[in-house]
Amino acid sequence: MGTKIVILGAGYGGVMTSVKLQKILNYNEAEVTVVNQHDYHYLTTWLHLPAAGTIHHDNCRIDIESIIDTNQFNFVKGTVESIQPDNKQVSLADGRVLDYDYLVVGLGSEPETFGISGLKEHAFTISNINSVRLIKEHIDYMFAKFTQEPDRADYLTFIVGGAGFTGMEFVGELCDRIPALCKEFDVDPAHVQIYNVEAAPTALPGFDPDLIDYAVELLSSKGVTFKINTPIKECTPDGVVLADGEEIKAKTVVWTGGVRGNSVIEKSGFEVIRGRVKVDEYLRAPGYDDVFVIGDGSLVIDETQNRPFPPTAQIAMQQGEALAENLAKSIRGGQITKFQPDLKGTVASLGKGEGIGIVGNKKVFGSTAAMLKEVIDHRYLYKIGGIGLVMKKSKF
Amino acid sequence: MGTKIVILGAGYGGVMTSVKLQKILNYNEAEVTVVNQHDYHYLTTWLHLPAAGTIHHDNCRIDIESIIDTNQFNFVKGTVESIQPDNKQVSLADGRVLDYDYLVVGLGSEPETFGISGLKEHAFTISNINSVRLIKEHIDYMFAKFTQEPDRADYLTFIVGGAGFTGMEFVGELCDRIPALCKEFDVDPAHVQIYNVEAAPTALPGFDPDLIDYAVELLSSKGVTFKINTPIKECTPDGVVLADGEEIKAKTVVWTGGVRGNSVIEKSGFEVIRGRVKVDEYLRAPGYDDVFVIGDGSLVIDETQNRPFPPTAQIAMQQGEALAENLAKSIRGGQITKFQPDLKGTVASLGKGEGIGIVGNKKVFGSTAAMLKEVIDHRYLYKIGGIGLVMKKSKF
Repeated sequence: MGTKIVILGAGYGGVMTSVKLQKILNYNEAEVTVVNQHDYHYLTTWLHLPAAGTIHHDNCRIDIESIIDTNQFNFVKGTVESIQPDNKQVSLADGRVLDYDYLVVGLGSEPETFGISGLKEHAFTISNINSVRLIKEHIDYMFAKFTQEPDRADYLTFIVGGAGFTGMEFVGELCDRIPALCKEFDVDPAHVQIYNVEAAPTALPGFDPDLIDYAVELLSSKGVTFKINTPIKECTPDGVVLADGEEIKAKTVVWTGGVRGNSVIEKSGFEVIRGRVKVDEYLRAPGYDDVFVIGDGSLVIDETQNRPFPPTAQIAMQQGEALAENLAKSIRGGQITKFQPDLKGTVASLGKGEGIGIVGNKKVFGSTAAMLKEVIDHRYLYKIGGIGLVMKKSKF
Repeated sequence: MGTKIVILGAGYGGVMTSVKLQKILNYNEAEVTVVNQHDYHYLTTWLHLPAAGTIHHDNCRIDIESIIDTNQFNFVKGTVESIQPDNKQVSLADGRVLDYDYLVVGLGSEPETFGISGLKEHAFTISNINSVRLIKEHIDYMFAKFTQEPDRADYLTFIVGGAGFTGMEFVGELCDRIPALCKEFDVDPAHVQIYNVEAAPTALPGFDPDLIDYAVELLSSKGVTFKINTPIKECTPDGVVLADGEEIKAKTVVWTGGVRGNSVIEKSGFEVIRGRVKVDEYLRAPGYDDVFVIGDGSLVIDETQNRPFPPTAQIAMQQGEALAENLAKSIRGGQITKFQPDLKGTVASLGKGEGIGIVGNKKVFGSTAAMLKEVIDHRYLYKIGGIGLVMKKSKF
């Protein structure tokens, strides 16, 4: 066989690398192995929907086999334990060891709790299919418990920590879901309280002020209480304690306040900043010409602003596509090219038919933003699975 | 206005009394008030189905307004606090007081825990819409939690205390639901454990041995572990401790081991045996010619066996119908007649298409029993709501 390429993770970055590489490579030109914890790929940017229960989690996942041709590439279902870059090896949790000539690390992110006490133990996170299915079932369960103990306001108090994109998108969905939940469980909607708590001096830090105002006003009008400029001091089994001393009793705390790179990267000895590898212009880990890091585990500096690009699906996908071309060039002995992100903008959904976004330099609101979000989602599905996948997974 | 009749509870007994009474009474012949905790009637004998999640709880409840004409009878949504039979008054939890000339007490049952420690605090019961909705959501939640902590076998261990009719019917449904739950949550069915624990020397004590064998073998073949002749010593947040010292770790314990009469009856000073009033042959509480007790709160002796009839929907319905006729006779100054149950038999479901039963002297098994159970259910719906209700609520 030819060159061994191992791709760790089938998230946005790993899947785009794989799909593109399958298009470029000829038969037997390389032996490619894709490793993923599950036998499905999930749409991380949709996870706030099944978390709130507005769509089923199956709508957010796609069998690996339906997007990657497993006759052409090997697929290994397994959890990565560590990478030994000096030996060019990867160890899996079940003891298997994989050799590589080129390694693609697309292992995604983990929640960043900034050392806030109790958050790791008591807060839910919007991280993967299992974690959002748990949030959905937990919320349903709290409604069922409330009908038995109607003096327990904490059962129907929902705290979302972090008013970034994920936090606000989730809050938007939750507002949409509450009427159905109240009907299902015979609960008066007046009993439900939703808090969105953010440490920064504004919601959506760094985003356009007009769009921030729009989002905050919209969600406030749906009943959300914002606590901005209010760090969480502690999370307990009973709720949260804020930095200003206020305690909010709630049986549901969802933490969306930040992510860091997968801990496997740091454990494997790579130099990291908040779990992320500051890759070179070819997406390589410092010191290793054969290890590429993409997606949430990579850190790419935006030279125009002199700060890292935020970790998004968009940049992960662009990295995956660029990397696939460079991998093909490498095994063919060609010259590899520099990665240059070409970010089109950012759109966030805020419940059904609502959203905000920046496309180019243009601000978009409301139904326009919601529609754009759908277009972006469909474009991705088309890229990885063609029109068939778009039809199958469409939220419409 | 004429005679004041107050009917407490809209269960099988209360509803049958009300429906029959509406048919017999002429306009303004009596002022009838029906008091119920909810604005719906629920089908107690179906509750094991939504508890397991095989049907939606809404299929087991019917708006009071759709079975009782609230132009003819008053409907009061409220919780009965106590009865003052010497003052001919009923006090509700919200402070309202109702006067009566004749009182019908059809307040149903409460779980009987026989003093087993921790059962009241930690076990679920199949008692009403809220309690079974909680069981269903709890089970779903346990599956969701297991996907996050796959070493927690207790999340997928289900203990049903009591192998009487309700216990075995619930276990049968649960077996039917497990495959769907495993699919929904990506769980290997091999992780699921179901125990049915019974203190008596046999499952379904007092029932026909052939039918008991059939039921136990059927459910065993579906994976249920029976622990017969094994009292539960204690229920804890972590599971149960059996009398023989064995501890089974389980986050779900459903207690179906027995019922007693509603505690309001005892609190109101009536003489009770396990919460039930031993009524006379006219269904009257001892010492009160104007207080009738029906359903699970009443105790009627089966003279042929010299022991109480078990509390069933069937006897409650017959009591309700007989009582309606006697109430009409009473207010018209006629002679009331003795209540004589005419029990047709007993049929229990054991999951979809399966069941056991005795009809007359005939034993029925399998699909015949399951079909008979449906016929019985439909007959009841027809009695209280006509063919429209049968069509609406049919489980087919």
